Amino acid sequence: MNISERLKNDATYIWKKIYQHPFVTELYDGTLPEKKFRFYVLHDYNYLSTSIRNFSLLSAKTENDMNMRELIEIAKLEATGEFKGYKEFLKKMGISIEKAVNTEKTFIEISYESFLFSTSLIKSFAEGITAVLPCYWSYSEIAKTHRNKLKNNRNKLYQEWASFYLEKDYLKLVNKIKNIVNKIGANYPYEKLTKVFKISSKYEYLFWDSVYRMESWPV
Amino acid sequence: MNISERLKNDATYIWKKIYQHPFVTELYDGTLPEKKFRFYVLHDYNYLSTSIRNFSLLSAKTENDMNMRELIEIAKLEATGEFKGYKEFLKKMGISIEKAVNTEKTFIEISYESFLFSTSLIKSFAEGITAVLPCYWSYSEIAKTHRNKLKNNRNKLYQEWASFYLEKDYLKLVNKIKNIVNKIGANYPYEKLTKVFKISSKYEYLFWDSVYRMESWPV
Amino acid sequence: MNISERLKNDATYIWKKIYQHPFVTELYDGTLPEKKFRFYVLHDYNYLSTSIRNFSLLSAKTENDMNMRELIEIAKLEATGEFKGYKEFLKKMGISIEKAVNTEKTFIEISYESFLFSTSLIKSFAEGITAVLPCYWSYSEIAKTHRNKLKNNRNKLYQEWASFYLEKDYLKLVNKIKNIVNKIGANYPYEKLTKVFKISSKYEYLFWDSVYRMESWPV
Amino acid sequence: MNISERLKNDATYIWKKIYQHPFVTELYDGTLPEKKFRFYVLHDYNYLSTSIRNFSLLSAKTENDMNMRELIEIAKLEATGEFKGYKEFLKKMGISIEKAVNTEKTFIEISYESFLFSTSLIKSFAEGITAVLPCYWSYSEIAKTHRNKLKNNRNKLYQEWASFYLEKDYLKLVNKIKNIVNKIGANYPYEKLTKVFKISSKYEYLFWDSVYRMESWPV
Repeated sequence: MNISERLKNDATYIWKKIYQHPFVTELYDGTLPEKKFRFYVLHDYNYLSTSIRNFSLLSAKTENDMNMRELIEIAKLEATGEFKGYKEFLKKMGISIEKAVNTEKTFIEISYESFLFSTSLIKSFAEGITAVLPCYWSYSEIAKTHRNKLKNNRNKLYQEWASFYLEKDYLKLVNKIKNIVNKIGANYPYEKLTKVFKISSKYEYLFWDSVYRMESWPV
Repeated sequence: MNISERLKNDATYIWKKIYQHPFVTELYDGTLPEKKFRFYVLHDYNYLSTSIRNFSLLSAKTENDMNMRELIEIAKLEATGEFKGYKEFLKKMGISIEKAVNTEKTFIEISYESFLFSTSLIKSFAEGITAVLPCYWSYSEIAKTHRNKLKNNRNKLYQEWASFYLEKDYLKLVNKIKNIVNKIGANYPYEKLTKVFKISSKYEYLFWDSVYRMESWPV
Repeated sequence: MNISERLKNDATYIWKKIYQHPFVTELYDGTLPEKKFRFYVLHDYNYLSTSIRNFSLLSAKTENDMNMRELIEIAKLEATGEFKGYKEFLKKMGISIEKAVNTEKTFIEISYESFLFSTSLIKSFAEGITAVLPCYWSYSEIAKTHRNKLKNNRNKLYQEWASFYLEKDYLKLVNKIKNIVNKIGANYPYEKLTKVFKISSKYEYLFWDSVYRMESWPV
Repeated sequence: MNISERLKNDATYIWKKIYQHPFVTELYDGTLPEKKFRFYVLHDYNYLSTSIRNFSLLSAKTENDMNMRELIEIAKLEATGEFKGYKEFLKKMGISIEKAVNTEKTFIEISYESFLFSTSLIKSFAEGITAVLPCYWSYSEIAKTHRNKLKNNRNKLYQEWASFYLEKDYLKLVNKIKNIVNKIGANYPYEKLTKVFKISSKYEYLFWDSVYRMESWPV
């Protein structure tokens, strides 16, 4: 078992909760109230910007020039391709890009974002890239888990949104990150990697949970 | 009104909730269950270590040599004085320093710590030092608010703990941080400062709330 | 006069020395010994990697999402386009990519790289992006200054190399950086910007000088 | 042989040049022109400020709480003790603290400082603390090498300055840094450590050389 599989295995108890979270199951079977989806989309758009910046930090930090270039390509893909896709998606939903940009970050977003940035900046590159993996990977695992539900999903928006995470291009992106983790993780204390992997997995769960409750800050 | 007063003013709605949180009121009137206090102390010890590192980051980042030296003196004071005090306090409670050091950080701790570190590293010095202020200042304001209750508090530990935040030395420390914020904040967009001040204030509230519920991670 | 013009103006005494440095003039008139050019190319390849990482750091640090995306596009362009161009160029010169990657960085490279990284990480975004400008801009200004010599340059390699910095795409890249500096610099203390601009300009001169002398470390 | 001895051993060819540099030998035998010493003192004062900030960064980055506290104590010692000593020393020389603070950093200072900061921020803690060692350690080795000359040194200022680096307190400081390097270096790729150790050693030599020539910037 390679490092990334081992990391996922050891976080199974969190990932299972993600797969079964009502936001996720209702999204895939089409019963999710659209106002919840809108709330999600607005905040996920913000997360995308965070994630791109974080890939940038990691590309600056890796000692390996191949990794550096790969991470910049990922950042670029996200900064143009996914951003563009989002823009169109928002348009279909009747949400302006300005509204998305000006959406105030929630408690979970600020916390998760700060965790990613401070891990990338203070900890090692190995820990930084591992912290990034749960987000990208869990999206494709969620899609794999619930793909059968998609056929009967009557909400075209949800179908379109979910299909993206089953596409080859997306899986290639996930594999790229996994490969970097597998290589760098092979010579790195596993304890430290599983720690950040679990924390990011928990933030993933908490993100789904907070958008389902449409919660900004609990105080 | 100087900047720090204005910042506190604009966060009154959060600070009032802190003053009235059951952890705080029960601590000051002596009715707080001791297991909750133990939980708090173990995690606050971890926070101290975070806070020292954060002062270090800020001392490296300020352009002003006076600020640099002051921040190092604060870090040093915390790293020796307060740490030593804590060690003795833990001893009285029958908690070994090892147990405190090995206590796993909670969800709120990781989130708050990450917010402080990433603010210090990515944002400006002005924002970084402002993010630090709510913790130190709210402790002295809590003590001021509830000091009358202390006389009738039958729990010697709680009395001892709370008295620390009424001492001149502690108020001097708070004033030092306030002064730095007032000086640097005078020429800095207030919007950015009030934003981080409020976020840290919210984390303060959430920290009290999580230790009252003795919560590690919600997942 | 916009900020970038003012910055260049105030560094004229350094830039003039760059235009007149024997490495530069001999390169453009074709008399530069090829071993000196080889030395330059190997080290400039390393600098490219530094520069990409630095754009990444800046893209993570800017508060402006548009800047963030532009800087990632620049990093990506450099990481793929220019890297690819370099690879082919090295091939023509009979230099393997491995040799370039394994070339030990010189004194000036380490110093210049460290200055760029530490400016981006410790100082403001405004100072970080300003520190980057002299490199990109001076290359196009050098080309503009000496373009007439190129026709009679019998060294095809030198011609090819120099022509790159006259191309529209390159000028567009320089303009993008200038525009970011102009916008962010409009509300930023000029004193701080001119300081880093001059320092980077001096490193540019020292880089040319060190490769002309084929100097690794003076000790 | 522990790591720090091995590092020094492998940098012997640089350290020998430091011991024999005219600034060093003339300082210890009392023949150094005082204007050169003045130039040195002004710039060394700036370096002290850099060094303190760098210890702060390292204290924030180490995973080990003991290291964190030790590094803060070192930073504090430097920020108060050595700063105070310097202030008095400058006073004896008729130099105001303002003049020292406003002295513009030289080429070597900017380069060395940037190297220390970017190593601490981008590389590992192990590399960061190793980069710091040559400065502190070489000062005590220089003093050990030339201590016999001090008796006949007629320049009281030089005697006083040099004696500092023979004192127990200073040697204790050096040993603290060595111990941290020895511990963290035991499980770290030696290649990376020797690389930064040599680079810092070279910057040390270049610093002596530049102040002897009273050079600000070579351009």
